[in-house]
Amino acid sequence: MTTQRKLRYGMVGGGQNAFIGAVHRMAANLDGQLELVAGAFSADAANSKTTGEQLFLQPQRTYASYTEMAEREAALPANERIDFVAIVTPNFLHAPVAELFLKKGFHVVCDKPMTLNLREAKALRTTVRRTGKVFALTHNYTGYPMVKEARELVRSGKLGKILKVVAEYPQGWLLDKIEATGQKQAAWRSDPKKAGASCCVGDIGTHAENLGRYITGLEIAELCADFTTFVPGRKLEDDANMLIRYQGGAKGVLHCSQISCGEENNLNIRVYGTLGSLAWQQEHPNELKFTAKGEPARILRRGNGYVSDVAKKFTRLPFGHPEAFIEAFANIYLEAVAAIRAKIAGKKGTFDYPTVDDGVVGMAFIETAVKSAASKGKWTKFPQF
Amino acid sequence: MTTQRKLRYGMVGGGQNAFIGAVHRMAANLDGQLELVAGAFSADAANSKTTGEQLFLQPQRTYASYTEMAEREAALPANERIDFVAIVTPNFLHAPVAELFLKKGFHVVCDKPMTLNLREAKALRTTVRRTGKVFALTHNYTGYPMVKEARELVRSGKLGKILKVVAEYPQGWLLDKIEATGQKQAAWRSDPKKAGASCCVGDIGTHAENLGRYITGLEIAELCADFTTFVPGRKLEDDANMLIRYQGGAKGVLHCSQISCGEENNLNIRVYGTLGSLAWQQEHPNELKFTAKGEPARILRRGNGYVSDVAKKFTRLPFGHPEAFIEAFANIYLEAVAAIRAKIAGKKGTFDYPTVDDGVVGMAFIETAVKSAASKGKWTKFPQF
Amino acid sequence: MTTQRKLRYGMVGGGQNAFIGAVHRMAANLDGQLELVAGAFSADAANSKTTGEQLFLQPQRTYASYTEMAEREAALPANERIDFVAIVTPNFLHAPVAELFLKKGFHVVCDKPMTLNLREAKALRTTVRRTGKVFALTHNYTGYPMVKEARELVRSGKLGKILKVVAEYPQGWLLDKIEATGQKQAAWRSDPKKAGASCCVGDIGTHAENLGRYITGLEIAELCADFTTFVPGRKLEDDANMLIRYQGGAKGVLHCSQISCGEENNLNIRVYGTLGSLAWQQEHPNELKFTAKGEPARILRRGNGYVSDVAKKFTRLPFGHPEAFIEAFANIYLEAVAAIRAKIAGKKGTFDYPTVDDGVVGMAFIETAVKSAASKGKWTKFPQF
Amino acid sequence: MTTQRKLRYGMVGGGQNAFIGAVHRMAANLDGQLELVAGAFSADAANSKTTGEQLFLQPQRTYASYTEMAEREAALPANERIDFVAIVTPNFLHAPVAELFLKKGFHVVCDKPMTLNLREAKALRTTVRRTGKVFALTHNYTGYPMVKEARELVRSGKLGKILKVVAEYPQGWLLDKIEATGQKQAAWRSDPKKAGASCCVGDIGTHAENLGRYITGLEIAELCADFTTFVPGRKLEDDANMLIRYQGGAKGVLHCSQISCGEENNLNIRVYGTLGSLAWQQEHPNELKFTAKGEPARILRRGNGYVSDVAKKFTRLPFGHPEAFIEAFANIYLEAVAAIRAKIAGKKGTFDYPTVDDGVVGMAFIETAVKSAASKGKWTKFPQF
Repeated sequence: MTTQRKLRYGMVGGGQNAFIGAVHRMAANLDGQLELVAGAFSADAANSKTTGEQLFLQPQRTYASYTEMAEREAALPANERIDFVAIVTPNFLHAPVAELFLKKGFHVVCDKPMTLNLREAKALRTTVRRTGKVFALTHNYTGYPMVKEARELVRSGKLGKILKVVAEYPQGWLLDKIEATGQKQAAWRSDPKKAGASCCVGDIGTHAENLGRYITGLEIAELCADFTTFVPGRKLEDDANMLIRYQGGAKGVLHCSQISCGEENNLNIRVYGTLGSLAWQQEHPNELKFTAKGEPARILRRGNGYVSDVAKKFTRLPFGHPEAFIEAFANIYLEAVAAIRAKIAGKKGTFDYPTVDDGVVGMAFIETAVKSAASKGKWTKFPQF
Repeated sequence: MTTQRKLRYGMVGGGQNAFIGAVHRMAANLDGQLELVAGAFSADAANSKTTGEQLFLQPQRTYASYTEMAEREAALPANERIDFVAIVTPNFLHAPVAELFLKKGFHVVCDKPMTLNLREAKALRTTVRRTGKVFALTHNYTGYPMVKEARELVRSGKLGKILKVVAEYPQGWLLDKIEATGQKQAAWRSDPKKAGASCCVGDIGTHAENLGRYITGLEIAELCADFTTFVPGRKLEDDANMLIRYQGGAKGVLHCSQISCGEENNLNIRVYGTLGSLAWQQEHPNELKFTAKGEPARILRRGNGYVSDVAKKFTRLPFGHPEAFIEAFANIYLEAVAAIRAKIAGKKGTFDYPTVDDGVVGMAFIETAVKSAASKGKWTKFPQF
Repeated sequence: MTTQRKLRYGMVGGGQNAFIGAVHRMAANLDGQLELVAGAFSADAANSKTTGEQLFLQPQRTYASYTEMAEREAALPANERIDFVAIVTPNFLHAPVAELFLKKGFHVVCDKPMTLNLREAKALRTTVRRTGKVFALTHNYTGYPMVKEARELVRSGKLGKILKVVAEYPQGWLLDKIEATGQKQAAWRSDPKKAGASCCVGDIGTHAENLGRYITGLEIAELCADFTTFVPGRKLEDDANMLIRYQGGAKGVLHCSQISCGEENNLNIRVYGTLGSLAWQQEHPNELKFTAKGEPARILRRGNGYVSDVAKKFTRLPFGHPEAFIEAFANIYLEAVAAIRAKIAGKKGTFDYPTVDDGVVGMAFIETAVKSAASKGKWTKFPQF
Repeated sequence: MTTQRKLRYGMVGGGQNAFIGAVHRMAANLDGQLELVAGAFSADAANSKTTGEQLFLQPQRTYASYTEMAEREAALPANERIDFVAIVTPNFLHAPVAELFLKKGFHVVCDKPMTLNLREAKALRTTVRRTGKVFALTHNYTGYPMVKEARELVRSGKLGKILKVVAEYPQGWLLDKIEATGQKQAAWRSDPKKAGASCCVGDIGTHAENLGRYITGLEIAELCADFTTFVPGRKLEDDANMLIRYQGGAKGVLHCSQISCGEENNLNIRVYGTLGSLAWQQEHPNELKFTAKGEPARILRRGNGYVSDVAKKFTRLPFGHPEAFIEAFANIYLEAVAAIRAKIAGKKGTFDYPTVDDGVVGMAFIETAVKSAASKGKWTKFPQF
């Protein structure tokens, strides 16, 4: 059923001290379907070389730049060259790297937010459509089985018509100006040249939006955003609160923060419908609370017989043996890999991973929020695209 | 130290099938400081009479109307007449009843929201000031010891400068149009003539506002509100979401709902400062989460030696023996009673109960939210008063 | 439906610095059904007098001793004398005070454990039966609505056949030898003359046993107990662990402790059957977890429409408005008072409060545990009685 | 710093429908340090072959039996042959497979319980000592960072002298006789020939014991065990309750169950000392509750700056990005691999993984519990070994 080999992939970004590159590699390793064989891990050639060695790569396949990598990999024989590239750089490089590799014939797995702005996002969508390659965006939180279960609950009608969505993503790690101390993660995220027009919304608010849309299917009609830069001297917002009006009449509250002391990575969502509600917290991802009208809350837990087939499909361990962040991330990879295998085999299929279209919506969300905030919080229409 | 007798009180409202009247009576009973001796429990004389009998009142002190009660009680000898009146009617009667009893020389304990509108509130404030009587407003949630502890944490500087406040008050009991089925609590709350210009914000949003202000001391500069009436045919909003800008630069999110399926009475608040944060939930009121920057969250629990003297003062039971809603409500009564005893004794003192000034702010909050919502969500300045 | 007056009661014990007396009074106050009119609050006459004043008693009804009180109250006219006595002394006085008042014709509400030993308990049972008076033992934790709901779940068969019961009651307040510092609560509880043969099991283990028996109806066949006195110089055990074999084949684990650092009053129980399980924690008493085989856990919460009529009957507030320790305690009083009113009215009725028979079982439990522990942990049969 | 290659390993057991084999492979994959190159996955040759194909092995290195595998791998050149074997068979094969591979010169990673009985365990210990090979036993729960943090808290003295340990491991998956329906996991675990003298204690009780010993360092002096086989026709116990007396005077309660309806994999432990206590639950593994005497409980969370270096070392993701079962399992592998790399490099080092000595204690624990239970619950001394 599978092609009789592991797929080969290369990585752009993810050198020493990077965060998300290591996450991608663990996610890619987990299920034994993939082999990392090439990389341009850093603009710093020494960093890239050391990283390649630590990852047991053949020296000749650790490249000094992503352009060199694209060139040289494309020149390798088909049974050696990478099947896809994983892009784990700061935001500003997503689009150029993705465009290049797509055009060279490679599939792409790319971190979020997809691009620096909506214009780039639309251009990338065009390239993906034209090349016909797989493009998977790692909105990883939708990889959690109980998030998929949440979506199934909505789809099955158990919540009735959705009335209200509350999505939160508070963090506290930027409460101090750590970008001034050389903390790399903070430095590029708060730098408009590397991160784009938003820090907090681009980094995490977009996950909250994506999660809400994944679970409910609701599209935003308009929103009102209040951004704050609490830390003096920071160039982008570190806190954002929004009210949302969805198409069809549902209402939403979405707030995210990087200066909420004591919060770690507390993405969570509550969805209220006419027949039931659900609540899910990323920091306790194996549980999903579902409350039907007039009935006791039910605590649905991953791995049980009563969960949907969709949630079961993305489950590796029996109930009570918790899965977490890496496993959810790996679920995005599993689907992207399945899609790539299908492409290679010339087969059709439906796969559950965030696409370039999700990326376009995400960038539209960021731009709309930025625009509303810039107007001191006017209600702002969500663009058509 | 105490005057050598129980205080006597009468009640307006609180007949059969009422909710909050029974709560007031239990709160008043709890500490054995008070005696209920008179009442005008209902506009329905039979209901009032039956209620008086069930409460073991002397028949002649169950009155057919609050005006009769005010008249007749004022005419009793000083050692028989009530010391204060508890007003537990629907909102529209708060102001007229309070005005009358104050003018007749009685102290007042009154349920919230204080009046039908800000104009009435200001007038009542004038009367209270002029008569010099005690006027206590039962914003009962501030009676919880761990809410007082939260305020102490803020006052002590342990949170540093407050940056963000998230206050929520979701309920689900009005998800169906139960006012159409004769449910009394729902009927008057959704009737503008009895409840005022707001249902959800007036009933519960105002508690969230009051709680936030009590704990943080922050005053609202402007807000943006989005009201929704989700249940067809309902006359007032049953859901409200707001963004808040506080004086001094802090930001807030406040949302409340009566149509959030599965939610019971989930008032909760999180306050984030530069040095620490706190979180408290009304449904688990004996705990307060405090997280100092860079340290593990601490779970402070009522009754322990480490809590402040203020929290200790309002504690009846040792740790682990939970106190709850009635005890918190009774704490408002304890302070109001102490204030009344001090007045009787001609003494000064500082007491910790919500005053007519809090009531004025509460009405200003409701009116500002209504105004913003009516303008489709424009940012609206908080009035001076 | 009710007799047309409040019942009158007197109290033995409960002077200044006592704990449980104040709890009884608040529980008795809460529902406005009772009037405290007499008391012998302390062996220390000054303490008793001051207590009586603080409670607004008529001076002549604050007595210097319980014998005087029994004598003098019995001599009062029927429409003045107390209807019942509440006994809230250290354990060693329970039996003599109860015996005296029963014989003088009064009903009795008595704190637990019922007596100093099983022999006294049986004698008291004889007196109760002979006098026909109401005798209610304040095993207060069975007053919680969700404990009653737990019993209903078992009775309804939703758990199937019970297989295993785990009951815990860890506290930490005796981790230091505070009895040596004059802490009154600690002093008498660790003094065999005042507390009986056991400290930890007599004070709290017996609650865990009673709770388990109340919910499951299971009777202990034999048990194996390991007692420890961790604090040097303490005269009685401050920690006890037991294995239990129930009649009919179910198994149990019961452990209690007064030296478990950080534990407050963490009574909790889990019951596992062939079809379902339940879990309840005293520190979060408004919730009951029920899990049917193969289904998600359901969180049942007090005050909802879906709970049994029994749980509803003992509920004062709507869902989400938490009730707690005092309200549960008051439920014992409500039922005792209803039983007393029925006696006065010459009516029959079934009431849900712990009786003298429960007290006998409780004392048998304590004695069996003490006996097993004294034999270094031999399995010991539960006595017949 | 690392040897310049991935280590190669083979697997015995872990064919299709096996549970723990897949877990071992994911744990081995996660960090990109290992390559699975050989296997004898099943006594069923077809199953073994299919498994090898699915895992992308070279066909010639999927073996029909573990003896063939040992033989043939030993015959391969050093730069091809496996560095170690992972044994993931039912219990009865652990000892023979381990003995064989050790004697053939391979390092071993072996699932628990280590052997069928204590005699085998001691013999295996002798072989390990004689061969000098690395032998790692996958008591995986000690791989959790917050378990390591718990041990550090104890070691640092923050709990003072340990007084009491409560360890629980309830599961519910064997509530029905699923071994009769062909469920493989249930079938071998309840078969004395394959599992040994115990089902519940051997499978999970031993984890609870190991966890307690790992965290506290306490050694059992004697125990009293009550075993029950609740499911008719089952050959071994499916529930076990124990009281424990530790050397030095601490006391313990340990209970485990496979018939506790609604429980999934709820291993948890509480440790109470003279200065503080801790609590950890496997199903919420990123948190550790620590309560110092007289202070609020602190919720320590993985990944924060305030945790010990030991906990940090075994952490892959920032705080709030939860890690779980597989990551903990992989931590055992990481240390075993580090130990093997050190052996290969001829270096010394201290590594934190469960050893053959832990396995011997584990088997002694199982045998002592079985012996006590067989004597109807007599206190039974822990053997010397």
